[in-house]
Amino acid sequence: MNHRGFASDNNAGVLPEIMTALANVNTGHTTGYGGDPYTELAIKLFKRETSPSAEVFFVYNGTGANVIAIQAMARPFEAVICAETAHINVDECGAPEKHSGCKLIDIPTPNGKLTPQLILPYLHGFGFEHHVQPKVISITQSTEMGTLYSVEEVQKICQFAHENGLLVHMDGARISNAAASLNCSLAEITANAGVDVLSFGGTKNGMMFGEAVLVFNPDLTASLKYIRKQTAQLHSKMRFISAQFTAFLTDELWRKHALHANKMAQLLAREAQKVEGVEITQKVQANGVFAIIPPSWIELLQKKYFFYMWDQNRSEVRWMTAFDTTEEDIYDFVAQINEIAKR
Amino acid sequence: MNHRGFASDNNAGVLPEIMTALANVNTGHTTGYGGDPYTELAIKLFKRETSPSAEVFFVYNGTGANVIAIQAMARPFEAVICAETAHINVDECGAPEKHSGCKLIDIPTPNGKLTPQLILPYLHGFGFEHHVQPKVISITQSTEMGTLYSVEEVQKICQFAHENGLLVHMDGARISNAAASLNCSLAEITANAGVDVLSFGGTKNGMMFGEAVLVFNPDLTASLKYIRKQTAQLHSKMRFISAQFTAFLTDELWRKHALHANKMAQLLAREAQKVEGVEITQKVQANGVFAIIPPSWIELLQKKYFFYMWDQNRSEVRWMTAFDTTEEDIYDFVAQINEIAKR
Amino acid sequence: MNHRGFASDNNAGVLPEIMTALANVNTGHTTGYGGDPYTELAIKLFKRETSPSAEVFFVYNGTGANVIAIQAMARPFEAVICAETAHINVDECGAPEKHSGCKLIDIPTPNGKLTPQLILPYLHGFGFEHHVQPKVISITQSTEMGTLYSVEEVQKICQFAHENGLLVHMDGARISNAAASLNCSLAEITANAGVDVLSFGGTKNGMMFGEAVLVFNPDLTASLKYIRKQTAQLHSKMRFISAQFTAFLTDELWRKHALHANKMAQLLAREAQKVEGVEITQKVQANGVFAIIPPSWIELLQKKYFFYMWDQNRSEVRWMTAFDTTEEDIYDFVAQINEIAKR
Amino acid sequence: MNHRGFASDNNAGVLPEIMTALANVNTGHTTGYGGDPYTELAIKLFKRETSPSAEVFFVYNGTGANVIAIQAMARPFEAVICAETAHINVDECGAPEKHSGCKLIDIPTPNGKLTPQLILPYLHGFGFEHHVQPKVISITQSTEMGTLYSVEEVQKICQFAHENGLLVHMDGARISNAAASLNCSLAEITANAGVDVLSFGGTKNGMMFGEAVLVFNPDLTASLKYIRKQTAQLHSKMRFISAQFTAFLTDELWRKHALHANKMAQLLAREAQKVEGVEITQKVQANGVFAIIPPSWIELLQKKYFFYMWDQNRSEVRWMTAFDTTEEDIYDFVAQINEIAKR
Repeated sequence: MNHRGFASDNNAGVLPEIMTALANVNTGHTTGYGGDPYTELAIKLFKRETSPSAEVFFVYNGTGANVIAIQAMARPFEAVICAETAHINVDECGAPEKHSGCKLIDIPTPNGKLTPQLILPYLHGFGFEHHVQPKVISITQSTEMGTLYSVEEVQKICQFAHENGLLVHMDGARISNAAASLNCSLAEITANAGVDVLSFGGTKNGMMFGEAVLVFNPDLTASLKYIRKQTAQLHSKMRFISAQFTAFLTDELWRKHALHANKMAQLLAREAQKVEGVEITQKVQANGVFAIIPPSWIELLQKKYFFYMWDQNRSEVRWMTAFDTTEEDIYDFVAQINEIAKR
Repeated sequence: MNHRGFASDNNAGVLPEIMTALANVNTGHTTGYGGDPYTELAIKLFKRETSPSAEVFFVYNGTGANVIAIQAMARPFEAVICAETAHINVDECGAPEKHSGCKLIDIPTPNGKLTPQLILPYLHGFGFEHHVQPKVISITQSTEMGTLYSVEEVQKICQFAHENGLLVHMDGARISNAAASLNCSLAEITANAGVDVLSFGGTKNGMMFGEAVLVFNPDLTASLKYIRKQTAQLHSKMRFISAQFTAFLTDELWRKHALHANKMAQLLAREAQKVEGVEITQKVQANGVFAIIPPSWIELLQKKYFFYMWDQNRSEVRWMTAFDTTEEDIYDFVAQINEIAKR
Repeated sequence: MNHRGFASDNNAGVLPEIMTALANVNTGHTTGYGGDPYTELAIKLFKRETSPSAEVFFVYNGTGANVIAIQAMARPFEAVICAETAHINVDECGAPEKHSGCKLIDIPTPNGKLTPQLILPYLHGFGFEHHVQPKVISITQSTEMGTLYSVEEVQKICQFAHENGLLVHMDGARISNAAASLNCSLAEITANAGVDVLSFGGTKNGMMFGEAVLVFNPDLTASLKYIRKQTAQLHSKMRFISAQFTAFLTDELWRKHALHANKMAQLLAREAQKVEGVEITQKVQANGVFAIIPPSWIELLQKKYFFYMWDQNRSEVRWMTAFDTTEEDIYDFVAQINEIAKR
Repeated sequence: MNHRGFASDNNAGVLPEIMTALANVNTGHTTGYGGDPYTELAIKLFKRETSPSAEVFFVYNGTGANVIAIQAMARPFEAVICAETAHINVDECGAPEKHSGCKLIDIPTPNGKLTPQLILPYLHGFGFEHHVQPKVISITQSTEMGTLYSVEEVQKICQFAHENGLLVHMDGARISNAAASLNCSLAEITANAGVDVLSFGGTKNGMMFGEAVLVFNPDLTASLKYIRKQTAQLHSKMRFISAQFTAFLTDELWRKHALHANKMAQLLAREAQKVEGVEITQKVQANGVFAIIPPSWIELLQKKYFFYMWDQNRSEVRWMTAFDTTEEDIYDFVAQINEIAKR
């Protein structure tokens, strides 16, 4: 039996409902590469949850989803604007630049969130061939800092982007956590808010593998199936991704587990900040908790519940909760903090 | 209950042993991206089965494995030599060129197999900057035509390649079928024969997802982990690939199922060619059967057991068997052929 | 004083008219990167000579022109069809694949010329995401084999391409020689015949540097200036390319010198084939002569007049004439052949 | 007769010495692509001026030189560190990312100059596959802000880079101006200081076209000729680049003209800052002058002597002097400023 920790929601395993779904579709032969009824059903559910006109493409992982989205939205001489902390900017080993040829223009933010005001100074050089042409604004929902864009904030960025001839990509690796926290539908923070292309994440919220690229802007769909294949993100035995998504979307399974993870993060933040020496540095809106703690505590604390350093200079750490985090985990972890604090 | 057919071995589902392995590792948290004990174990098994000095990198799919291998072996001004029928040449939507920037030099072959003699005329222009520089020979084992390279043939190509300053990549999407048919170990047709990098396929022989890049040439390993990540082929919940491979490699599970699939192909070929009008066009050495049949039969035959057209001009079709193909499937299918032949 | 030979038309120097043109524009400052009146004028002349709706982009060299054209016409999952002997296929070190990400589909031809009949078997897999999507047919005029497409042949290929949803690129590194030989205008074999994008070559016919990309298809122009810049083919001191082209296009200077080079090739072929042992292998329609000669002659012949081996296996050589080749050069060279033949 | 202005040194024409050199080599045929004696000579001179072990590759332009250098120094998963204002970061339409696949990590600086201190915080994530791997530090000499690295500063950056396993690229589009201003040899600020690869610029200091990539690090040379060709930067009639460089390097022609341009910038800055309302914003060390002037002056001033806005928000403009700028130009321009200031 493996131990649980606070390193990452992707260190958790797979939801029992997902395991069952995988077993249920494991019979006989079905057409490969998505030409099967399970995929048809999963796509239907995605359309229902987001937009009837969504085009849905299942892929392997978040980086795959993101680089496919960017290739569909921008040509190599166009640029992608993102927060300095964006996953596409710092955690994908340069995959966006390599796959798309595009420059990433990264903008410092206090909390992982872009705003029209922050973006505006970077919108220049249009028509000037010496400069890359800004084309895509990529936002992460929930952000890498555990914060959220409200529905209104997403709408404003989308409106701002479209008024300036740009498109909006949403990296939704943790979109379940966002929608759960905002108590809204998936549609409200994506298609309805004006997002053009969404990377929809399943793995961090309990799937085994598989993400989805949802294209809401009909101008961008034609090339996507070729881009997916060429990017090596088209699964042969597709039913095993589709079945997971069908389970995930049925009766909002995603929301149930995301709500739980979010709740655990709230609990952790609330309890941890009672300890003198712990400073929570970001709003806890999804399933991540960012805290500054004394450097001397860190190694000791990681022994039982592993987690990652976020910013060495500030002694800031990141604690992630997952669908399977328990209240006991939290209380035990905070007890550890307390104990170390008292030494 | 889905029906079985002869379209592709990747239309089949997942081996029960694999499903069990997946369930068994689904407990608690483990470090993501391969830093877990399950991955350590699977890598150990791979080294045992191939070469102690192999470096092993798990990826999502065959195209991913192939383009990672090529990126590790060749720079953009170098070229990859392959058979005209190679999967990398015709079935990956140009992924090799896109990811590596390299030209593919494809050589017509009678049976999907390259030989030093066939390759020799393409080895020129070395040092001449106007020409791409031949660097990699990529062979498929078993080939896309259902044929095999003998151990000796692999050795000869590797020796020839190395003598000419080239490297050898083996696309082993169906390497299980090859080793089973040749009655040899995995090591004998890969590392021991001189192969530099191997794409090791699991999906077509009963895994749910996941392939492996095995690097036997120590000069090529340093960059591979970065290339894998940048190519969007690094899985976060790696234990779910690793556990499959561990099951696959334990007690040669792969051989048992590959042998069965091969045997079914033999049976199919033997029975089918008894029908007048059926001409088997390639040696049946693995799990594929290629046959020319009258054009008028095809649509009728596909109704119950789907399969693909291979070469419309010749009315040549491809029948693939899988780990779950039964003798009953074969006899029933051949009965159908007989019936249609008699109309 | 350097000697003349038959190695390549690009071994020749620069036309005196071009040198004068360069000197004439070398006064004071002008806006860089093409925003100068000399460039405006040269573009105007190009429009007059080809099509009023042509968009004209000056670049450095032929490979630059070709890879810019391909980037404008095809996305990475699309393919470029060309003759096996095409410069883009064999003489650009894989630049087309590297810059565009596209696969090149090369077709064997007897004489360097594609035809609809030769291309047809390669037009398949449309809509099938596993295959690259054929998108561009690239023809060379005059071809690398010294042969020509008639106006009608260009028209037929363009019509065939457009009927099948493809675009036509013409590599016109030696288009002057073609138009001169066909006794037609530049417009007739390019824009009027249906060509979508033309690489217009100046260097091989007496310019110092500089080629042009002419876009006749208005759907393809929007991105071209960015592609040119990003491909590192935008010259800062543009007037020095523009002035050359203005001289080149004024009073059909290009035709005068191309006619001469063509005439010299005719003379060379006529005289050389009188020598026993010399077999002219291709129609001599432009400024290249291909001949099979005894292997033992070659080294001796190259001493005074250098030229390149074309096909070692057949002992086939290539002799190129240039704008400055003289009748004396030809007669002296043939005299050498005769002398060697008699040994 | 074109007017002179202060827009850019590349708006100027070509030195008479260069024009003469071009004419002198325009005789007969020479081997293409650099296999000619003029190229041999120019390379010899470059080695003499920089390092006997330098490998020298002539290319078309600065962007070409830079992207070739980066491709030789870094693989796609590695990163290039540069100043936020670097030409490679803002003025090449994303060419570095497109050609190399690498991420650019751009660092804000007060004056266009990087220092070890500024770079240090960005040197992390080594060996961590989720992060791009810092590999190249690219500095511009003289910088885009008209400032200079002293010999010692270059040495320190190189030492710092090498100690951390990184390489140093110098973008020397205006290296003549730097060496002239520092009163040092080309070797002192390049090879001798530890620079690995240098983009050597000729066009901005009076050449017609052509730049050079100088590789001082012998580990990086093997692939360069292929990269140059594949990047479409190999000129066929190479003697016309080589002859320019030979003239440029003979008797330090480059220094004479760079000194003059620098002197003119000094004069301009000295005179202009006498006008109330003009604030010089950067040290004037090469041939660029940066000044904040009242917004209302700008359009009026640009009429007779065109120049570019640098930073609209600050009303900061850039005035560049060139080899042909005269004292009269300066005094007349400053007179204009005075006149406008008095309105």
